[in-house]
Amino acid sequence: MNYYGNHLTNLIEEFSRLPGIGSKSAQRLAFYVIDMPEKNVEKFAEAILAAKKNIKYCSKCQNISDSDPCYICTNSSRNNKQIMVVEDPRDMAAYEKTKNFKGKYHVLHGAISPLAGVGPQNIKIKELLERLQTDDEVEEIIIATNPNVEGEATAMYISKLLKPIGIKVTRIAHGIPVGGDIEFVDDVTLLRAFEGRREL
Amino acid sequence: MNYYGNHLTNLIEEFSRLPGIGSKSAQRLAFYVIDMPEKNVEKFAEAILAAKKNIKYCSKCQNISDSDPCYICTNSSRNNKQIMVVEDPRDMAAYEKTKNFKGKYHVLHGAISPLAGVGPQNIKIKELLERLQTDDEVEEIIIATNPNVEGEATAMYISKLLKPIGIKVTRIAHGIPVGGDIEFVDDVTLLRAFEGRREL
Repeated sequence: MNYYGNHLTNLIEEFSRLPGIGSKSAQRLAFYVIDMPEKNVEKFAEAILAAKKNIKYCSKCQNISDSDPCYICTNSSRNNKQIMVVEDPRDMAAYEKTKNFKGKYHVLHGAISPLAGVGPQNIKIKELLERLQTDDEVEEIIIATNPNVEGEATAMYISKLLKPIGIKVTRIAHGIPVGGDIEFVDDVTLLRAFEGRREL
Repeated sequence: MNYYGNHLTNLIEEFSRLPGIGSKSAQRLAFYVIDMPEKNVEKFAEAILAAKKNIKYCSKCQNISDSDPCYICTNSSRNNKQIMVVEDPRDMAAYEKTKNFKGKYHVLHGAISPLAGVGPQNIKIKELLERLQTDDEVEEIIIATNPNVEGEATAMYISKLLKPIGIKVTRIAHGIPVGGDIEFVDDVTLLRAFEGRREL
């Protein structure tokens, strides 16, 4: 039932299409928007359009960027010897926040998932291979895809492609998270932690 | 740190200004928006602008509406004898969903709250009084403000204003919610439920 008139009801519907926004949250957001100053509402709508229209990807690492190549690819203080392969720009951001990795990145924009109809040709693997043909400094590819079925399949696929070329391919370690409690860690993680044990 | 370029970072900031949206949710929403088809993004931005620009209020009941007077105020099958006073259009919608109340509404758009600087002049009490001067059929005002300090203060204020005019003023009952568990109900509600007991 349309209790609030067409325009507000329409906005509530638009909000409820977003992920993680239920009908009650959508209602709260829509009411909040109509109570916002008109200037801020315009800024909000413009931000949405601008983000969609001006979104650019770095032609080297495929990360979202305002410039091409992106600020990481053009940063001469970073080494060209290591490329960390991630599924998503957010994974790159997570590693950047650690301020420890000083190599470059490659963003796949997804992971191989036959069930979801995502094959190797649908993610940026071809771009990685092309990049390795021109960048001859690269010594190591660090695969930082997620530790789930899709991420592991993607890691295996890439490592099989790259090993014949003679590039070292590594995978970030699986194990017990720092601060975690062994009692509550799942079996697979415990096994991986055991397999990956190191001498002290 | 701006990991995703200015446009996307700006959109993340805009989303995180909305109520109940933290930085992680804002990020998820912004990434979802840039992956949406361009048409849908435009529809979303337009819905935001349209809701803000075209928002209208019914000059009788002050509810949000596309037409003036609204569809409830113009509905001749509803009685003019009862007016339910609510704080918010959502409260009206909640009562409409019960499909039981057949009178009209009056939306205050807030409640008296000296702490938040909201006085009687900041909510639509004047409009209620003006309405009662022209609508001489009204026999009962049902005050359905929220059962908190602000809602109670508003209810008291309105009842003191209207009693001298000779209109019956009632308040919706407080008590144990249907399906609730007495063990877990707060003291004030238990007292109200006791005071409001009825003969079986």
